[in-house]
Amino acid sequence: MIKIIVDCFGGDRSPDANVEGALSALRKFQDLYVILTGDENILRSKLEGKVYDSERLEIVHAPEVISCDEQPTIAVRTKKESSMVKSIIMLRDRDDISGMVSCGSTGALVTGALVRLGRLKGVIRPAFCPILPTMSGSIVGICDSGANVEVDAAMLRQFAVMASFYLEGVYGVKSPRTALLNVGVEAEKGDAVRKEAYALLKDTAEVNFVGNMESRDLLGGNYDVVVCDGFSGNVLTKATEGTALELLKKLKRDIGTKLIYKLGALLMLKMFKQEKDFMNYQNYGGSVLLGTSKVVVKGHGSSKATAVEKCIEQAYRMEAGALGPRIEEALAKYEHYEN
Amino acid sequence: MIKIIVDCFGGDRSPDANVEGALSALRKFQDLYVILTGDENILRSKLEGKVYDSERLEIVHAPEVISCDEQPTIAVRTKKESSMVKSIIMLRDRDDISGMVSCGSTGALVTGALVRLGRLKGVIRPAFCPILPTMSGSIVGICDSGANVEVDAAMLRQFAVMASFYLEGVYGVKSPRTALLNVGVEAEKGDAVRKEAYALLKDTAEVNFVGNMESRDLLGGNYDVVVCDGFSGNVLTKATEGTALELLKKLKRDIGTKLIYKLGALLMLKMFKQEKDFMNYQNYGGSVLLGTSKVVVKGHGSSKATAVEKCIEQAYRMEAGALGPRIEEALAKYEHYEN
Repeated sequence: MIKIIVDCFGGDRSPDANVEGALSALRKFQDLYVILTGDENILRSKLEGKVYDSERLEIVHAPEVISCDEQPTIAVRTKKESSMVKSIIMLRDRDDISGMVSCGSTGALVTGALVRLGRLKGVIRPAFCPILPTMSGSIVGICDSGANVEVDAAMLRQFAVMASFYLEGVYGVKSPRTALLNVGVEAEKGDAVRKEAYALLKDTAEVNFVGNMESRDLLGGNYDVVVCDGFSGNVLTKATEGTALELLKKLKRDIGTKLIYKLGALLMLKMFKQEKDFMNYQNYGGSVLLGTSKVVVKGHGSSKATAVEKCIEQAYRMEAGALGPRIEEALAKYEHYEN
Repeated sequence: MIKIIVDCFGGDRSPDANVEGALSALRKFQDLYVILTGDENILRSKLEGKVYDSERLEIVHAPEVISCDEQPTIAVRTKKESSMVKSIIMLRDRDDISGMVSCGSTGALVTGALVRLGRLKGVIRPAFCPILPTMSGSIVGICDSGANVEVDAAMLRQFAVMASFYLEGVYGVKSPRTALLNVGVEAEKGDAVRKEAYALLKDTAEVNFVGNMESRDLLGGNYDVVVCDGFSGNVLTKATEGTALELLKKLKRDIGTKLIYKLGALLMLKMFKQEKDFMNYQNYGGSVLLGTSKVVVKGHGSSKATAVEKCIEQAYRMEAGALGPRIEEALAKYEHYEN
């Protein structure tokens, strides 16, 4: 049985979306067990009338909620009865639990996970790895997308190893083509950190390193993993999502300006729906925090039930694929090893 | 008379697009004078049969060409007879010339401009400022987009001042809303450089500082200037352009898959053409290098004649608006002044 905690009081649509997502995941995986955290009375009322295997569902009462406006370090220290902090502590203390999913404050989740959960052996700093769809139908992981605004070359190498294992273990991408985000493709591009990382990555047997890449080529389908510092990774991820969403919004607005466009769009309704689904991050789950001692998945703040379900699936597959032990084993080979 | 040099042997469509663009600009501005650099015989043959005011056009022979594969520092030092280096030296030495436009190697242009041209008084480092269209019909300048992969807070403040003056002086944007690119909107986000820059920008009278911004909001139309280091600015600019182009390509491909979609698209032909024009960087000119002692505009490598014309117009308007002296005057007020 793989046990995953679902923090039910985080995200714009919580707790409904979180509960609904957990029940869907339960139906999908017969050896999955979910622990819902949050206000017990509310959670029980949400479950009323639903059909689910009660042997594989547990509720842990946590009356407090951390909002996104709170200072992460303070919130994590003071709100021990919040669904998020209680989830993290339970994950740390109970050997039978493998991972957790939260759609709450990113800052609080990262701080809480780092402080209370700790890292896998050998990991310098955990990193986020969201997944985006490419135009050729493949997917691409971006690591780090925001947990570490400052990095060194050794960290970038670790991000590459962890993300490669993740893409292969959870998504079945064989020998993921891994590139270093840079301002040009030539080996000598970028600052000192990038140049050193380039040299390290060339010598990393676990990584299928294909060189530097530019952000404009992210969606072309030629890369499976993009390695970067958390600052530029955050810029890359949000610029890509933002541009796609703004462009679709503009198309929709422009269609509304003329009757003939509306007629044309009517014929293309199915296609436009597909494009919208395609660019909808809800369908690609959350951003996994790679390198913590146990699995942590961060869902978008606006996650619907399907997105929460995907997040649970990601946590489930990471445990099923024994990602943690595999990362520890790989990192032990390289210098900069610390713990 | 405002004199602008056009490097005619740089860019995928040179020299035809460059010559054609120069002639269009001559027709548009009656007090513009252009100096074409490159192989004189070829340039003369390209001008044959064209109608233009020969009193306002000059050719300067430069037989060599710098390719994009060459090491910038070496190319700039050794290829003194190249159209690019000759343009830079002429711009430095002739008081009657105000600026230059090149679509050649970015690295060589930056290196050449920094080494041979020097900076405006008080400028720590010049920075690129490309312009992108937003979905609300406004434009947004991104500074720096790649000249400086590493920056400090004082540089970021200067980028904000220079880019604000540029948007106001060349594009008529009143009191440009200027934001700092960051991983979140809260004041305490980002690394030490970002936090210091935030404090400096709040105290800069010349800048209408509106706080931090996230890359996902670039195209929403709420910002006129985005200030950033050259690394993340490069990631932002190319990710935005890349995503828009890839998405339009995908739409086109998907339309081709079914007859009914093709019919629908036929009704929307005019609209799709408008979207394509809208996202086409060719219509927004080049990336201006702000802070060099004289005006330097870098056009896209794939610039067509219309894009070259826009680049010349940008250089012309920067001179007409006396941007250089205004920047020097403003920067003199702040510490970190050096020269």
